[in-house]
Amino acid sequence: MPEIHATRRESLRALVRAAELDALLVTDLLNIRYLTGFTGSNAALLLHSGGDSGTVFCTDGRYTTQSEGEVPDLERVIDRQSAAALLRRGSEHSREYGRTGFESQYVSVEQYDAFAKLAEGFELRRAPGLIEGLRLVKDETEIEALRQACAAADRALADLLARGGIGPGRTEREVARELENLMLDHGSSARSFESIVAAGANSAIPHHRPDDTVLTAGDFVKLDFGATVDGYHSDMTRTLVLGEPADWQRELYDLVRRAQAEGSVAVRPGAVAADVDKAARQVIEDAGHGDEFSHGLGHGVGLEIHEAPSLAKTGDATLSAGMTVTVEPGVYLAGRGGVRIEDTLVVRDAAPELLTLSSKELVVV
Amino acid sequence: MPEIHATRRESLRALVRAAELDALLVTDLLNIRYLTGFTGSNAALLLHSGGDSGTVFCTDGRYTTQSEGEVPDLERVIDRQSAAALLRRGSEHSREYGRTGFESQYVSVEQYDAFAKLAEGFELRRAPGLIEGLRLVKDETEIEALRQACAAADRALADLLARGGIGPGRTEREVARELENLMLDHGSSARSFESIVAAGANSAIPHHRPDDTVLTAGDFVKLDFGATVDGYHSDMTRTLVLGEPADWQRELYDLVRRAQAEGSVAVRPGAVAADVDKAARQVIEDAGHGDEFSHGLGHGVGLEIHEAPSLAKTGDATLSAGMTVTVEPGVYLAGRGGVRIEDTLVVRDAAPELLTLSSKELVVV
Repeated sequence: MPEIHATRRESLRALVRAAELDALLVTDLLNIRYLTGFTGSNAALLLHSGGDSGTVFCTDGRYTTQSEGEVPDLERVIDRQSAAALLRRGSEHSREYGRTGFESQYVSVEQYDAFAKLAEGFELRRAPGLIEGLRLVKDETEIEALRQACAAADRALADLLARGGIGPGRTEREVARELENLMLDHGSSARSFESIVAAGANSAIPHHRPDDTVLTAGDFVKLDFGATVDGYHSDMTRTLVLGEPADWQRELYDLVRRAQAEGSVAVRPGAVAADVDKAARQVIEDAGHGDEFSHGLGHGVGLEIHEAPSLAKTGDATLSAGMTVTVEPGVYLAGRGGVRIEDTLVVRDAAPELLTLSSKELVVV
Repeated sequence: MPEIHATRRESLRALVRAAELDALLVTDLLNIRYLTGFTGSNAALLLHSGGDSGTVFCTDGRYTTQSEGEVPDLERVIDRQSAAALLRRGSEHSREYGRTGFESQYVSVEQYDAFAKLAEGFELRRAPGLIEGLRLVKDETEIEALRQACAAADRALADLLARGGIGPGRTEREVARELENLMLDHGSSARSFESIVAAGANSAIPHHRPDDTVLTAGDFVKLDFGATVDGYHSDMTRTLVLGEPADWQRELYDLVRRAQAEGSVAVRPGAVAADVDKAARQVIEDAGHGDEFSHGLGHGVGLEIHEAPSLAKTGDATLSAGMTVTVEPGVYLAGRGGVRIEDTLVVRDAAPELLTLSSKELVVV
C-alpha cells in the first residue's frame, strides 16, 4: 500500500514546514516503517519538505530486493552507513536541505557529533517527536491491523479454553507457550511481548514471568498477552479462576471489572488522560484498595506495545478520535492473588470501539 | 550468581578510574544486566568507582520483588524515572560523584539535556563504550550460556531432521516455526532473531524472511537461526539440499565450506578482524565468486546477537582469547540459490572452540 505511506509523508511535511525545516532525517526504524512500509533492520530516510522527489531512502545490501518491493515509490540508495549516506547526499545539495531536522529524542550524543561532521553546508536542528505526534492518531489502515492483532489474541484464548489448555496440573510456562503458538496459528507474526501467565500467589505480581509453577484448583490465573499483525500490537489481560471462586475472589474480580468499565466509558475525545485514570482508580480507592493498584490505567498501543498517550495519574494528554489505548486496572493482594482486566480500545466520537472481544465475565475453568 | 556480577563491576571500576571518573551512570539495559543480573525493562545503575557501597540500582514498582531476587547485593531504589532518581541521588552527595560518566553512545541528545539539568553540583562526562570493552571478552559464565544456547539450536536441528521436518511440500514458514518450537523444547527462552528459512531461489537472498514458499525437490534450503539462554544468543546457519545435489550445488557448497574452514582457522588471539575476513574471502574470490559474497564474514555475539568485533573487510579489531564470533561466508547466485555456512566460535589460545556442533557435511534430505 504505497498510497498510505505517501499520505503519511505528506501529513508529516506540513509539520516539517511548520517547524521551519527544509527536511527531516528519520533514523528510527519504526518511524521509517510508518512512513515507507520498510520492515528491515537498517535504514534511514531523508524526507524533503517539498515532496517525494527530493526524498531519499537508504538501506544496506541485505535488503536490496526487499526494499524494492516495500519502498517502490522513493529513490533508494544502498549503503551500510544509511544515515551517513543521506547526510552526504544532503551536503551535495546543501541549498535544498538548508535546515534539516533530526530525531533528537533518539539520536545519541555520539551519533549527533558524527552527523554534524557530515552535514556540510547545512544546519542540523533538533526536531523531536514530529512523527510520534502523527502516530498518536491512527489511520484506518493502522486500526485494521490492530483489529486483526486483537482478533488473533481473542481466538487464541478461545481455542486454549476450548481444548482445556488452562487447568490444574499444567505449568505457567506450558500455558504461555501454547497461547503464543495459537496466536501464530491465527495470523500473528510474533508475540507482542513476553506473555504473562501468573497462577495463584503469582497473580499478585503485576509483571510475573511464567515459570514452572503448577496451576492448582482455587487459583486465580492472570494472562496478559498480545499478537502482532503488520507490525501492530494487541494487548489484553484476562483473569480466570480454576474451580469454584471463593467469595474474596468474586469480590475482587467484580471490583476490578467495575473499575475497568468506568475507565472504558471515560475514554472519549476531549478527555484528559489523568481523568480517565481517575475514573477507574476512584472505584478501587473507594473500595479501600487504592494502594494495591500500583500502576497506571493504560497506555497507547500501535507500532510500539507502549506508546503515547500514557493514561496515568499524571497524564496530561487530551484524547482524540483515532487514538488507541489500553484500559487495564488491577488490584494485587500480595501473597494471595491479583486480578487485572485489560482491553485495547479505539477512541471514537460516540463510544470507544472495543478491539479485544474476549468475555470479561469471570470465567471458571 | 551475584559473585560474577560483583567481579564484573570491580573490573569496570578499574576502567572508570582510568578514565578519571568518580562514577558511571549506566542506562543501557543489557549493560545493566551484565553488571547486576537484572532482567527487567526499566532500570539504571550508578556505579561508584570506590566500591559497591556507593553503587545504587534503580527500577520501578513492577520489579520490586524481581529486583530483590536478581540484585540482592546492591542498594535498590524504586522509582519509575530510574536515571533521574539516581542523578538526584548523585546531587545529594555531589562531592562523591564529582565527575560522573554517562553512556554517550546511547543517551540521546534530549535525554542528555534532561540529565544535565538534574546533575547539580557535579559534572556529567561522556564515557562511551567502557562496558562494551569488557563485554568483548567473555568470562566462563558467559561462554557456558553461549554453549547452552548453541546446543539448544544444534539439538533442535537434529530433531527436525530426524522427524523429517525438512522436506518437499512443507512451507518455509512451517519449518521456521517448528525449528523455533524445538529450540524452546531444548531450553531456549526465545529465538535470538527472526529465523531465516529460505528454499530454492530464496536461498540466494541473504536475509530472506520465511514465507509460504513450498520446499521442492532439488532446492537448497538455507536455515539461519539461534536460541537464547540466560540472555546469550547463538547464531548458526546450515544449508541443505532436498534430494540428489546437482553438480553446481556440490561445487558451490564445497567452495563455501572451504571458505568457512579457512575463516575458522584464522580465528586466533592476535589476528586482526580484516585478516580473518580475508582468509575466507580469498577462497571465494579465487573461485570467481567474490562479488556474490556480499556481506562481512562474521560478528561478535553475546548479550546482543550482533556485537563487536565485526569480522569485515574494514574490521580493525584485534582478536583476544575469550571473544566469541561467528564465521559465516556465503555465496548467493541470484535466481538460482545460495549457500551460507555459519558457526559460533570462541577465540582460544590453541585453536578456536566450536560452539555450534551440527555437521557441516552437505546434508541431503
